[in-house]
Amino acid sequence: MDLEAVNSMNYEQFLDIFGNIVEKCPIITAAVWSRRPFLTLSEVEDRVCEFIDSLPISGKEGILRCHPDLAGRELTSGTLTMESQQEQRQAGLTSLTSREQERLTLLNTRYKQKFGFPFVICAKMSDKDKILKELTTRLQNDPSAELLKGIEEVKKICHVRLQDIWCRGSPVPTKL
Amino acid sequence: MDLEAVNSMNYEQFLDIFGNIVEKCPIITAAVWSRRPFLTLSEVEDRVCEFIDSLPISGKEGILRCHPDLAGRELTSGTLTMESQQEQRQAGLTSLTSREQERLTLLNTRYKQKFGFPFVICAKMSDKDKILKELTTRLQNDPSAELLKGIEEVKKICHVRLQDIWCRGSPVPTKL
Repeated sequence: MDLEAVNSMNYEQFLDIFGNIVEKCPIITAAVWSRRPFLTLSEVEDRVCEFIDSLPISGKEGILRCHPDLAGRELTSGTLTMESQQEQRQAGLTSLTSREQERLTLLNTRYKQKFGFPFVICAKMSDKDKILKELTTRLQNDPSAELLKGIEEVKKICHVRLQDIWCRGSPVPTKL
Repeated sequence: MDLEAVNSMNYEQFLDIFGNIVEKCPIITAAVWSRRPFLTLSEVEDRVCEFIDSLPISGKEGILRCHPDLAGRELTSGTLTMESQQEQRQAGLTSLTSREQERLTLLNTRYKQKFGFPFVICAKMSDKDKILKELTTRLQNDPSAELLKGIEEVKKICHVRLQDIWCRGSPVPTKL
């Protein structure tokens, strides 16, 4: 996909393609459409990050709360978004041993009780062992540091999802 | 539903019930959960409005762009949210004559071309004749006035959806 194609989309086409670059937050994609024309493809990502950074703390917490648990109820019930489903599978979260599953569920529960939002990590840049380790470590963080860390991961996920989109129909990404 | 029940929900329960009080913007509901405990049921609505008002113009436009067209492609394809489906049916938009449907499609297209977001109106406080009249009138507005008008309607829709939730399981709403 090239820059001209992106800049020529109406908001409905833009939402159809980019609507879930931040998990279940199409409002962010829809807001970023206002910033056209983009000068480079990577400007789309910059504008998303800018919008996220401009939100109050509650809004950033809100973004994290729109994310599913890793290997949680939505994976089991098949209600994950297409992107999350693929990312969790690729990280090995669909083939946990029962011991790993138990441990992850326990840690997820503790994490949510402590922070009031789910543990978010860019699963595509990780695997099940690293995820369990990172979750254990990040559980020790204080809430404000952990909010920042979670938002950093949201931005990484957005980067990975955008790269996937840029590559579709074009073997070499144009600008990234 | 009473205040105690609302204040005792974890964020997942809160999102399950209130996630679509602003169409396809669960981030807003999820952000508002940070503001607990609520002192009255109507404080939930106040916090939603406060969050919307705090967004930059692009964010407000983003909210509008998350809304479906009235009697548009999502109604036809059956992909509307449950709430929108019910509201559009109640306003008579599922039983338009072909002439009404044509006129609405034409006006919706013109509106989106002019403003870059869809025509949003609280369908439950209206009917198909009023909607067609209002759409014709609002097409004449300038973009900044129309953005404010659209956001006013988003807040009315939120009010109506919250009232529906308060009434579920309790014949008389507690605080509204």
